[in-house]
Amino acid sequence: MNLPHFKRVPEHIGIIPDGNRRWAEGKGMTRDRGYEFGIAPGMQLYHLCLALGVKELTFYGFTQDNTKRPEPQKDAFKKACIDAVRSLAGHDASLRVIGDAASSSFPPELLPYTKRIKFGRGLIKINFLVNYGWQWDLRHGMSKTDNRSGKRAIQMAIASSDVSRIDLIIRWGGRRRLSGFLPVQSIYSDFYIVEDYWPDFKAEHFFEALKWYESQDVTLGG
Amino acid sequence: MNLPHFKRVPEHIGIIPDGNRRWAEGKGMTRDRGYEFGIAPGMQLYHLCLALGVKELTFYGFTQDNTKRPEPQKDAFKKACIDAVRSLAGHDASLRVIGDAASSSFPPELLPYTKRIKFGRGLIKINFLVNYGWQWDLRHGMSKTDNRSGKRAIQMAIASSDVSRIDLIIRWGGRRRLSGFLPVQSIYSDFYIVEDYWPDFKAEHFFEALKWYESQDVTLGG
Repeated sequence: MNLPHFKRVPEHIGIIPDGNRRWAEGKGMTRDRGYEFGIAPGMQLYHLCLALGVKELTFYGFTQDNTKRPEPQKDAFKKACIDAVRSLAGHDASLRVIGDAASSSFPPELLPYTKRIKFGRGLIKINFLVNYGWQWDLRHGMSKTDNRSGKRAIQMAIASSDVSRIDLIIRWGGRRRLSGFLPVQSIYSDFYIVEDYWPDFKAEHFFEALKWYESQDVTLGG
Repeated sequence: MNLPHFKRVPEHIGIIPDGNRRWAEGKGMTRDRGYEFGIAPGMQLYHLCLALGVKELTFYGFTQDNTKRPEPQKDAFKKACIDAVRSLAGHDASLRVIGDAASSSFPPELLPYTKRIKFGRGLIKINFLVNYGWQWDLRHGMSKTDNRSGKRAIQMAIASSDVSRIDLIIRWGGRRRLSGFLPVQSIYSDFYIVEDYWPDFKAEHFFEALKWYESQDVTLGG
């Protein structure tokens, strides 16, 4: 594939791969079937980011709020997360799974990845949010105290402190909301919406988002 | 004015009134002049919300990050915040100004409003973020401890705990980012962008946002 040229590529991209259930319904499948079709798009995006020099990539797996869904859907999205990690394992990446691993909703197969693990040459930093909750993330920060100074630094202490500020968030599936995606790191993120569902991922969606991002000023409030 | 009918009106709307500086530039004025033209639109929006039965309205005044801007701009946006509160004071509203009042960037004229104050019949709850900072907001939470249980409840303890979950955020001026706007309350907010600058506010912008909001499902992750 010929890669377009971009003047300015975001260092850190957040991905909200939404619309799997609506996609499955549209194909006449049960809603839980959508998730398994979300793995290949993720791998495609990984390869594109690597080729373009993106340094860090964060995928929204599932949240603690999502675990309120019916059992077949829960099983399906957990399995998809496990399969996604297995697909990535053969490639150059530095992976960390971030989420509440103390809960029964966390897939035990992913426990080894709650510490950052280098696959191959570890060329790109990948964060994968699994059983993630914004409250869990922020509360973690609230229970950590720097005893030497008596002060607490939220950027250092939240559960996702290993994840850097996100430049661009791309959400598939048309919804225009963050749904609890890393509230601290998304403070100044530019937010791009793709109307198509995630299993209908095309490289062009991603290129359009990057093209749009080029035209955004980054002021951080200044 | 004939108000359109909406099937579902958001209970709490957040307003990011951006584009004042770009608007002033486009009119051949200096950039700091834009803010004074932002007060009348705010009052117009207040009257529309009251007529439609919106229960709570939060306006982004300025942030601690914004105070890095040149002095004439700082003076102008502080003055606009003071004038906005004076304009509102004659009307039915329950107002609270939320922000770091301990800092020299906080306008002393607004100190009386850091506690909620009822104007007239107090028909609508209005939150006005002035010298607001997301770090200031969350850190406040981190320093509060419930000594009885030893646990900390972030929703209760953050500085903006008096502000409820936001259903719909409308940002004028084309930027697609939150810029630190109430990270906890905006977790599940639907996010609508108006391309026009805030001083070019039209009631139609607001009606289009409400029309769009009607078609959004509200799942809160479930």
